[in-house]
Amino acid sequence: MNTIFIIGVGLIGGSFALDIKKIYPESAIYGIDNREAHLNEAIKLGIIDQKAVLKDVANADLVIVAVPVDATLSVLPDVLDNVSDQTIVFDAGSTKEDICLTVKQHPKRRNFLAAHPIAGTEFSGPGAAICGLFNNKTNIICEVEDTAFKLQEKALKLFSELGMRIRYMNPKAHDKHIAYVSHLSHISSFMLGKTVIEKEKNERDIFDMAGSGFESTVRLAKSSPAMWAPIFEQNKSNVIETLEEYINNLKDFKKLMENEDFEAVYKEMQATNHIADILNGIQ
Amino acid sequence: MNTIFIIGVGLIGGSFALDIKKIYPESAIYGIDNREAHLNEAIKLGIIDQKAVLKDVANADLVIVAVPVDATLSVLPDVLDNVSDQTIVFDAGSTKEDICLTVKQHPKRRNFLAAHPIAGTEFSGPGAAICGLFNNKTNIICEVEDTAFKLQEKALKLFSELGMRIRYMNPKAHDKHIAYVSHLSHISSFMLGKTVIEKEKNERDIFDMAGSGFESTVRLAKSSPAMWAPIFEQNKSNVIETLEEYINNLKDFKKLMENEDFEAVYKEMQATNHIADILNGIQ
Repeated sequence: MNTIFIIGVGLIGGSFALDIKKIYPESAIYGIDNREAHLNEAIKLGIIDQKAVLKDVANADLVIVAVPVDATLSVLPDVLDNVSDQTIVFDAGSTKEDICLTVKQHPKRRNFLAAHPIAGTEFSGPGAAICGLFNNKTNIICEVEDTAFKLQEKALKLFSELGMRIRYMNPKAHDKHIAYVSHLSHISSFMLGKTVIEKEKNERDIFDMAGSGFESTVRLAKSSPAMWAPIFEQNKSNVIETLEEYINNLKDFKKLMENEDFEAVYKEMQATNHIADILNGIQ
Repeated sequence: MNTIFIIGVGLIGGSFALDIKKIYPESAIYGIDNREAHLNEAIKLGIIDQKAVLKDVANADLVIVAVPVDATLSVLPDVLDNVSDQTIVFDAGSTKEDICLTVKQHPKRRNFLAAHPIAGTEFSGPGAAICGLFNNKTNIICEVEDTAFKLQEKALKLFSELGMRIRYMNPKAHDKHIAYVSHLSHISSFMLGKTVIEKEKNERDIFDMAGSGFESTVRLAKSSPAMWAPIFEQNKSNVIETLEEYINNLKDFKKLMENEDFEAVYKEMQATNHIADILNGIQ
């Protein structure tokens, strides 16, 4: 791992760069980004060593594509057009079906590993990059059999050095399940924020009353629309399905309250407390 | 502050006891709880000095009522029946209208201060009590003019020593606004947990994919149903109103997705990002 290119020097790309520099201090890390200001900031923060352009990836050992998933659809084939046979390219997108499809027939398909590191914060840009972001996190790899064995090995060695656990999944299953445990959370949080902000127009004092519970549930509403709108677009049908179920559950809960059936309200909550055991399983 | 009674030695009552013992090491702290096991645990954990029963409050300087809000409606008048003229009694309930109403005509009304410290975690019971829980938190006080001036002073001195900032509000306004910034968050979180757990029945692998975003939005779904069902019951009409608005916002978002209007989806999220500034204001 001598020559590494990070395409998209934001939260995810930048965090990869910081960890890789620690593990391979001798490596040269190049940044590619359509925002010149982000590249300059990434250099200033010591995230990348220097700027580069797409055709430079010919010399890469590793290329990480960490741009919004709509941009990945156009950037990834261009990257593959330019890499050598020894280069491993992986992405970090929160959708996998469209991305895998877009390079399915690419002559360099075997240089690509479709990855989704389940890691991040609600912040974005180079300033949001942090060391150790991927430690103890899950990395979902799709269509592993379509990546050249020696190149897989290279990427898996890096993931292991970063402290990630690997799960293999097909792109369809990935997109379906991630809609529940990630995409829906973001919408529930955004709409919670919206509902409360709409109220605040008239009632400025309201936020003095907000505590850590509100803060925790609304945290994801700080997330980047540039990252999330394309995710919802690519995973539209799954996300709509989860939203449907979520809305129905909320309506049922409201109905129980309207019927003053607070014993049932109690039972609903008690049954869902089980989430604590599940979350303990995650950590 | 020599003789202090904590009624309900759980997360809130226990955390008050721990801080008070630090500030007044000479004080004697008595616990009252209908769960014998909680009292024994509270003694073992050094939260209270000894157990007591309701009629003992005759000797109290301070009584803190920290039981679920349905229990408060019956316990609070009993407490007031038993206290001396020098005793200040405050509650910590997440609803204020019914509680204030229930003691409105009580001959000892002026011994009571209606309080809602906006502090807590998703855990419950004596084991959940922590030092410093109230530091830098908001405490909402209702109908302050109905509390005897000298007794107000006693309570406010303690709140100040605990590091709390005070907001005065009428019970109606409290219950209306707290529905938005606290009660709704809990329902959104419980129903998110429910939606995902229902899915998990068939798909056990799904939780391997959950990250910190899901964990944060679903955290409140670990909360105690015994505490929350009575809150929703007492604040029924306000909570139903917030749920209505929340469900409508979710439906609108789903409609935008169905219409493939991802520019509007982007704008919805961008407008809600403003929550970050608001949350910075809270901290």
